[in-house]
Amino acid sequence: MSISSSTENSPPPQPRITIPHEVYYFDTDAGGVVHNIAYLRFVEIARTQLAAALGWTVEEMNRTGLVPVVARTEIDYLKPIRLSDCLLITAELTGMEKIRFFLRFEIASAAKPDLVFARCQQTMVTVQLPGGRPQRIPPAWTAAYPQLITS
Amino acid sequence: MSISSSTENSPPPQPRITIPHEVYYFDTDAGGVVHNIAYLRFVEIARTQLAAALGWTVEEMNRTGLVPVVARTEIDYLKPIRLSDCLLITAELTGMEKIRFFLRFEIASAAKPDLVFARCQQTMVTVQLPGGRPQRIPPAWTAAYPQLITS
Amino acid sequence: MSISSSTENSPPPQPRITIPHEVYYFDTDAGGVVHNIAYLRFVEIARTQLAAALGWTVEEMNRTGLVPVVARTEIDYLKPIRLSDCLLITAELTGMEKIRFFLRFEIASAAKPDLVFARCQQTMVTVQLPGGRPQRIPPAWTAAYPQLITS
Amino acid sequence: MSISSSTENSPPPQPRITIPHEVYYFDTDAGGVVHNIAYLRFVEIARTQLAAALGWTVEEMNRTGLVPVVARTEIDYLKPIRLSDCLLITAELTGMEKIRFFLRFEIASAAKPDLVFARCQQTMVTVQLPGGRPQRIPPAWTAAYPQLITS
Repeated sequence: MSISSSTENSPPPQPRITIPHEVYYFDTDAGGVVHNIAYLRFVEIARTQLAAALGWTVEEMNRTGLVPVVARTEIDYLKPIRLSDCLLITAELTGMEKIRFFLRFEIASAAKPDLVFARCQQTMVTVQLPGGRPQRIPPAWTAAYPQLITS
Repeated sequence: MSISSSTENSPPPQPRITIPHEVYYFDTDAGGVVHNIAYLRFVEIARTQLAAALGWTVEEMNRTGLVPVVARTEIDYLKPIRLSDCLLITAELTGMEKIRFFLRFEIASAAKPDLVFARCQQTMVTVQLPGGRPQRIPPAWTAAYPQLITS
Repeated sequence: MSISSSTENSPPPQPRITIPHEVYYFDTDAGGVVHNIAYLRFVEIARTQLAAALGWTVEEMNRTGLVPVVARTEIDYLKPIRLSDCLLITAELTGMEKIRFFLRFEIASAAKPDLVFARCQQTMVTVQLPGGRPQRIPPAWTAAYPQLITS
Repeated sequence: MSISSSTENSPPPQPRITIPHEVYYFDTDAGGVVHNIAYLRFVEIARTQLAAALGWTVEEMNRTGLVPVVARTEIDYLKPIRLSDCLLITAELTGMEKIRFFLRFEIASAAKPDLVFARCQQTMVTVQLPGGRPQRIPPAWTAAYPQLITS
């Protein structure tokens, strides 16, 4: 599969995006703040939009059956997020191996960008559906960001 | 597909089950009570266990690709559910047509069974995966509960 | 509480909004389409944005403790939603009583607006947190939309 | 707060439980397997039941406002979980500091206990609601398991 052939745009100079995100009641729990599990939805939204920005859209995943799968998540909950907080979520591609790639996320306050609510790292594996056989990561990514290849 | 052939047990005399269920933090919201969306998980848990009790297990669904799909949900939220409430969820098959069947649910307090937290009704359609083509409901169900056939 | 005093804008001529929304993997299930429970998140996102457009923001809810609570949901699942579908969600205030108000939702395809995936209606009750005592609906709403008062 | 005073039972000799758990459709995604976020619900269910087994029940949390909050999660997704898998989830208290404690989880197959689907570790902080001020962990825990005190 060629990711680059599926998009008319060149990959961005930095494999990183920042998106705004709202908090909803369904994200919170009876402690009055965002529930720890809801952060993983925030991370997935940013991850999906990063992949799309890098040319690997959901349409592409649907068409080819080639999808990224989470192999490992680490998340540090630094400050509670309240219903009234507006978020800025940053997602960044930080490293690539043959079949795995590495992402870093930061969930911060839109009002006070120095206020970081959480940091997260994920290890992703590229697999072919159905079946889930591991595959090489998008060649367009290694071509665009050779400095991130770690093996 | 014969549902009855996949189970060694006869269907129960009444197509109804009642199961206990706990409330977790992830079910609640910042209002301090169970979030309206979480009730639908309670309903799905009871629905899946009712289907299994009637011989239509998840294994069966996996094997045959024949699955029930929700076509309509009505739910009345009567009383708030708190984290410390233990629940009794009742699920009942109340009617059958050619490809649709009808379910009724009640979510009550295990401590005070007269305290009903919510009532729900769902219309289900039997479909064949992949594709989702509608199919006849399990013949074993119409055989076991002819009084519930409404068309 | 005065809703109108909390916003500098007049209420819109029609109490209705339409928002775009993306589908994520966490919205789907093993049937390959969006899970029935995820639709209720779509509805809540549109409901929250409608309330904000009408001057009843989450900040306002946080500050006053006056919140809308779902008393009843009816939802018809008309067509399956796939991962690659982009959605247009419409939310509309359709009626008001003393403490209850009524909402209607439509989840349609952004690519083909005639393709309606689901229709939903909700009955909401205005309550005061903590405690959940019912309260009058926002006076600014009845003032702005007297034609929607049904009792 | 005394956790021990709230329960008539002595703490178990090992601070560890194993519980069975079913997989539901709402746990899965369009990849045909359990979604990565759903694992965190499995972990929370086991965590809540471990806390209850150690005398720190949800009722106790509700009454005292003293609750455990997740400060960090690490989870390794080792094998995909399918709808038809029955799970055995093990949760274990592995270490205690003044206000933090450490948990380890394993999600395995009930049919083949050597088949481990995921391993997870969480760092928890004891906080007082409302407000979220950190508090000492339950004295009954340090009394019962002095060998787990790491600072």
